[in-house]
Amino acid sequence: MQNKRGLLIVVSGPSGAGKGTVLAHTIVNYPTLRYSVSVTTRKPREGEVEGVNYYFKTLEEFEELLSRGEFLEHQKVYDNYYGTPLSKVKQQLDEGFDVVLEIDVKGALEVKNKYPDAVMIFISPAKRETIEERLRGRSTESEEQLKIRTASAIEEIKQAVFYDYIVVNEDVARGAADIIAIIEAEKCKVKNNKKFIDNLIYGGN
Amino acid sequence: MQNKRGLLIVVSGPSGAGKGTVLAHTIVNYPTLRYSVSVTTRKPREGEVEGVNYYFKTLEEFEELLSRGEFLEHQKVYDNYYGTPLSKVKQQLDEGFDVVLEIDVKGALEVKNKYPDAVMIFISPAKRETIEERLRGRSTESEEQLKIRTASAIEEIKQAVFYDYIVVNEDVARGAADIIAIIEAEKCKVKNNKKFIDNLIYGGN
Repeated sequence: MQNKRGLLIVVSGPSGAGKGTVLAHTIVNYPTLRYSVSVTTRKPREGEVEGVNYYFKTLEEFEELLSRGEFLEHQKVYDNYYGTPLSKVKQQLDEGFDVVLEIDVKGALEVKNKYPDAVMIFISPAKRETIEERLRGRSTESEEQLKIRTASAIEEIKQAVFYDYIVVNEDVARGAADIIAIIEAEKCKVKNNKKFIDNLIYGGN
Repeated sequence: MQNKRGLLIVVSGPSGAGKGTVLAHTIVNYPTLRYSVSVTTRKPREGEVEGVNYYFKTLEEFEELLSRGEFLEHQKVYDNYYGTPLSKVKQQLDEGFDVVLEIDVKGALEVKNKYPDAVMIFISPAKRETIEERLRGRSTESEEQLKIRTASAIEEIKQAVFYDYIVVNEDVARGAADIIAIIEAEKCKVKNNKKFIDNLIYGGN
């Protein structure tokens, strides 16, 4: 079943779940899977390439795109805006690529609302304790701040019920294999193969 | 996420789709997957072992089980009855095995009705022409009979819309890999991990 429209994959999960690492491992092992390229008002950093790392826009351009409903989701981080451009994602999907968005829960629900066929994956640590360990490992925050961030990560896990799948990142290779299995299974869904079934029944290609 | 209840997998598909071959290949490559053992009123053949090939019962015993609602589905083939024993399947699932039933569409819908969590997979040939080729390969029927059987197989494909997944058997290894991906993905479904998620949020094991 080649030459079909790709799948839109939305990945979220709490800080300390290791989303980025699992996704990077998945993309290396699954050739049709691509990151979406975001639009941002942030200035390019040394070495960043337009259309590869980001589409760089002025605030006015961003607001113009936003008013035209051109974003699947968008968010403000400090003074900069970031958005997922609908038309670019659709283009990648039409070319048969699977597109992955790594976004927060709020953005994920926004995407699901605008693109109901999106496959929603929540990446989770295997144990409560892992969250704190990972947050502790990456920062020099005070114990107090660490407690707040751990509690906030656990709050985020409550949102997992809005997702289709939960992938446990106990082992990166295993987590990536689970994401690939999910994509392969979704490609076998009857609802994604209506045309193929019609062709079998009534002929045609 | 070990030590969990297994999945009930229902596999159907038209004659000539190669269900048996794909399933045999899947089971060899997926250690937790088992066939369900059917109850039958047919006499044991040379070498068949009670509880391995079938549970052999008299007609009276079969009817008694049937009247007690002990079958997930049952059917009559020529003069013999065959049934899938609910209690035995549940026992395998409780032990953490995934259980596969290879049954016709009518039986499959009966199972889905009694066990809504069943994962419904339809195995299909890749092309219309394959159905006729495979039916032709296996029988010495007349052209007329072949036409009838081909038409009937195509009628069966119309039932694919009642299934969750369609697996195309163009290549046996690929078909088996798709079934394994489906099982792995289903094990990642949020609805199959409520207890795990609760334990992450509220603690416990």
